[in-house]
Amino acid sequence: MKALVIGGDGYCGWATALHLSNRGYEVGILDNLVRRYWDLQLGVETLTPIAPIERRIERWRELTGKSIDLYVGDITDYDFLIKSLRDFEPDAIVHFGEQRSAPYSMIDRDRAVVTQVNNVVGTLNILFAMKEEFPDAHLVKLGTMGEYGTPNIDIEEGYITIEHNGRKDTLPYPKQPGSFYHLSKVHDTHNIQFACKIWGLRATDLNQGVVYGVLTEETGMDELLINRLDYDGVFGTALNRFCIQAAIGHPLTVYGKGGQTRGFLDIRDTVRCMELAIANPAEPGQLRVFNQFTEMFSVGDLAMMVKKASVSLGLDVEVEHLDNPRVELEEHYFNAKNTKLLDLGLQPHYLSDSLLDSLLNFSTKYKDRVDMKQILPKVKWRR
Amino acid sequence: MKALVIGGDGYCGWATALHLSNRGYEVGILDNLVRRYWDLQLGVETLTPIAPIERRIERWRELTGKSIDLYVGDITDYDFLIKSLRDFEPDAIVHFGEQRSAPYSMIDRDRAVVTQVNNVVGTLNILFAMKEEFPDAHLVKLGTMGEYGTPNIDIEEGYITIEHNGRKDTLPYPKQPGSFYHLSKVHDTHNIQFACKIWGLRATDLNQGVVYGVLTEETGMDELLINRLDYDGVFGTALNRFCIQAAIGHPLTVYGKGGQTRGFLDIRDTVRCMELAIANPAEPGQLRVFNQFTEMFSVGDLAMMVKKASVSLGLDVEVEHLDNPRVELEEHYFNAKNTKLLDLGLQPHYLSDSLLDSLLNFSTKYKDRVDMKQILPKVKWRR
Repeated sequence: MKALVIGGDGYCGWATALHLSNRGYEVGILDNLVRRYWDLQLGVETLTPIAPIERRIERWRELTGKSIDLYVGDITDYDFLIKSLRDFEPDAIVHFGEQRSAPYSMIDRDRAVVTQVNNVVGTLNILFAMKEEFPDAHLVKLGTMGEYGTPNIDIEEGYITIEHNGRKDTLPYPKQPGSFYHLSKVHDTHNIQFACKIWGLRATDLNQGVVYGVLTEETGMDELLINRLDYDGVFGTALNRFCIQAAIGHPLTVYGKGGQTRGFLDIRDTVRCMELAIANPAEPGQLRVFNQFTEMFSVGDLAMMVKKASVSLGLDVEVEHLDNPRVELEEHYFNAKNTKLLDLGLQPHYLSDSLLDSLLNFSTKYKDRVDMKQILPKVKWRR
Repeated sequence: MKALVIGGDGYCGWATALHLSNRGYEVGILDNLVRRYWDLQLGVETLTPIAPIERRIERWRELTGKSIDLYVGDITDYDFLIKSLRDFEPDAIVHFGEQRSAPYSMIDRDRAVVTQVNNVVGTLNILFAMKEEFPDAHLVKLGTMGEYGTPNIDIEEGYITIEHNGRKDTLPYPKQPGSFYHLSKVHDTHNIQFACKIWGLRATDLNQGVVYGVLTEETGMDELLINRLDYDGVFGTALNRFCIQAAIGHPLTVYGKGGQTRGFLDIRDTVRCMELAIANPAEPGQLRVFNQFTEMFSVGDLAMMVKKASVSLGLDVEVEHLDNPRVELEEHYFNAKNTKLLDLGLQPHYLSDSLLDSLLNFSTKYKDRVDMKQILPKVKWRR
């Protein structure tokens, strides 16, 4: 079984590629390495120093005897994409290859346009390539829980059965994304749904929550396999950022009231979810949607949990409420379903003191690499 | 009151520009003229010979004394767009400037990508230009009834109130578009909704049905003002195409069983709807959605009405059922609401024998210009 991991040099992609390789899949990585370039442009760096992709792959082979094919190029270049697919002949196409930061997409018009064009055209190219030459492959695509926004009703997994004026239908769940990035994922979802319908393709859309953690079984095997850990205002996500702030004695930066509730998951569950989705492919003609998270927390809850765990490590942690740079409800209903991956066998790692300890220890280990100028958010949503 | 009509050289745009000018608005037309170029590339031509845009505008001024400003360029070029807006200073931005053919978007990968990038980036640029310098302008944007697809419940105007597990919310109506073109309009809608929310912009999305007819009060004033009338398999719409087929003695080409039901409207109602939307702008922070059609018919019904009207003109008309090139339900529930424009004062022109006569007469007048090779559909949806 061959899995091509597009975006396999990124945070989720690298961990997934190694996990699949470890579990016996033949793995290829396709990546344009632009994520590293954006770091350069923004003047930010992962907390954990990451090796060049070639060196990472070489080290993996040295340690495990397993090789990973590498295709360096851009999926918005159809010619490159189709040639890579012909060479690798994937059974599963795992697609992490998108601009994935909401703040990045909100920096300015150029970044908004780049985000949407990059993400939408890349996915369109994959769909056309599948239609033309790989109609039986299974597309496993990263979406985001942020596609749903915060509706005042329960969030289902991709579809909702609506009774209206005495009639009933099951329709795509209404989307209220909160950034040009989140919007690009909604665009993708609609495009994939259509392609599955008219061409009989099979796809799974994984609406992932906020991922935390840095270690997986595989990336923890060697310093050269270490995964990236972003804490900056553009690419850092809430929990990772809080742990790093705690490690360096910076107040935890909660946006606004902190009542924003979201789905979260451990990166060890991310890689397991990918494996489960690949091992249980969607039917032809179907876009299947899974909500990929294990627990729901408010941002304020997270900050309090980090504060509590930090105290047990002897760290003194304050919580600071910043003006919210985003336009979002700070108090709202949020109840999202996530049973489909559990039904396939996912056994979640729950956020616990031990995990916080581990993430906090990691943060402490590399705290000298923290650039204080990058901690606070600089990108604003409002006019 | 100044209205800039983006895409003002097209079928709906030209009729709207003249109508608004006639009703006392200061009108500008912004157009890249690419619609004429696509005709050249595809080797097709409007049935009615249309004058160059400069000549059209000149003739309008000669006849009415009213001038129309012209900006020739592309809204995906932000620099050109913002300069044009600064020069014209619109109160209303009427946005028809998109690739609007479903078959065109389904020709191949290039056309799918061009359609989505052109439409999405053009609209993003308008939103950013409004945010930066014209936050009080009112965006009046053409959507399409095709965004909704054919759900098994009533179609509301843009939003639907859903009761689910004992809670209730009003959410964007779920979308099931049926081509890469229709998808691009769904992408636009989501982008506009977000921009209105975070930047306080005001916008009206007009989900238009299938437009028929060629004459409006203004375009009928002079041969040089005549509007385009497309009958080819790519840009021609159902009723216009049927009338032209009737005029030349070609069987009416009904796709599949012909049970596909859609909303329709007369182009004289299109221009009136635009006027009503502009005169009654949306509130700041709001994306308002109107369903812009006046009657619902199945394609088979339309064919029978054209056949009946043709007989009264002494034309002998057959109906031919072709293999449906599209992937769509041929028998389905369809009940869409359209009260909001009626509430604003729209007085519909109903499809009647007199209209069919007029459209049929027009078709007969220009029938020598029909290229028989362009009558049948060539673009297929299936793999």
